[in-house]
Amino acid sequence: MNAEFVNPFITGLLNVLETMAQTTLKPGKPKRKQSEIAKGDVSGLIGMVGPQVKGSLSITFDEGLALTIMERMVGERPESIDGEVGDMVGEVTNMICGNAKRDLSERGFEFGMATPIVVSGKQHSISHQVDGPKLIMPFHSDEGMAHLEICFDK
Amino acid sequence: MNAEFVNPFITGLLNVLETMAQTTLKPGKPKRKQSEIAKGDVSGLIGMVGPQVKGSLSITFDEGLALTIMERMVGERPESIDGEVGDMVGEVTNMICGNAKRDLSERGFEFGMATPIVVSGKQHSISHQVDGPKLIMPFHSDEGMAHLEICFDK
Repeated sequence: MNAEFVNPFITGLLNVLETMAQTTLKPGKPKRKQSEIAKGDVSGLIGMVGPQVKGSLSITFDEGLALTIMERMVGERPESIDGEVGDMVGEVTNMICGNAKRDLSERGFEFGMATPIVVSGKQHSISHQVDGPKLIMPFHSDEGMAHLEICFDK
Repeated sequence: MNAEFVNPFITGLLNVLETMAQTTLKPGKPKRKQSEIAKGDVSGLIGMVGPQVKGSLSITFDEGLALTIMERMVGERPESIDGEVGDMVGEVTNMICGNAKRDLSERGFEFGMATPIVVSGKQHSISHQVDGPKLIMPFHSDEGMAHLEICFDK
């Protein structure tokens, strides 16, 4: 998994949050260790299946950041992570993956996207079950962190 | 989504746990409401992508049931949900989906499986983001509950 492959996902996340919620995330240092685990309060997950590879993507938000994104999108801050916040996270997940899919397709790399799944729960952790490379990318903001994780089976 | 389509997943779950961990689950009444949400302590999730449809599957276990399954498989009961329990849940998820994939392929219904993702966290909830039908199937055991959820986009 090289930068050319991962960058469209990172750009997608940054663009989606800038455009939808005027929120600028600061990318941190990517980690490739198998032992690294993304933790947060609400996550969007999506599976990817292509002729060459299969894999999975997750984007995990701290509660404060998720509520701020929601507030900037709809004008009102929810008290906690509810169904609407979950739908927003699912939609963001779909958009990140959809943007990357289009970009990578133009370079001859095709995959199909499964439907997204949203997980809510205080400080849950995500573990992608792949033998191949994992990339966890932390993003910082004043309202909390986000972790983007992209994994493929080879 | 009809019974013919869902049954291979249910049979797969029952068979995998019987075979791997001598654990018999009692199937409860399936629910189709969009508002139903599976809750539990450790979940395996997998995306499915086929030429006709895409969707997602989750299997969520209460902690007590997950630890009992692990104990029966390896002879020692972990104190809590750790990485090895997570790997077991990921493997079970893969086997349930793989069994159903083979069964459905024989009937002319093809899909590709993404790689599984495991989520750990006390009483997290799972929300599949699909417009199509959702089926949540509860399973009872003396050691806790499991919830199997299967969703497709049409």
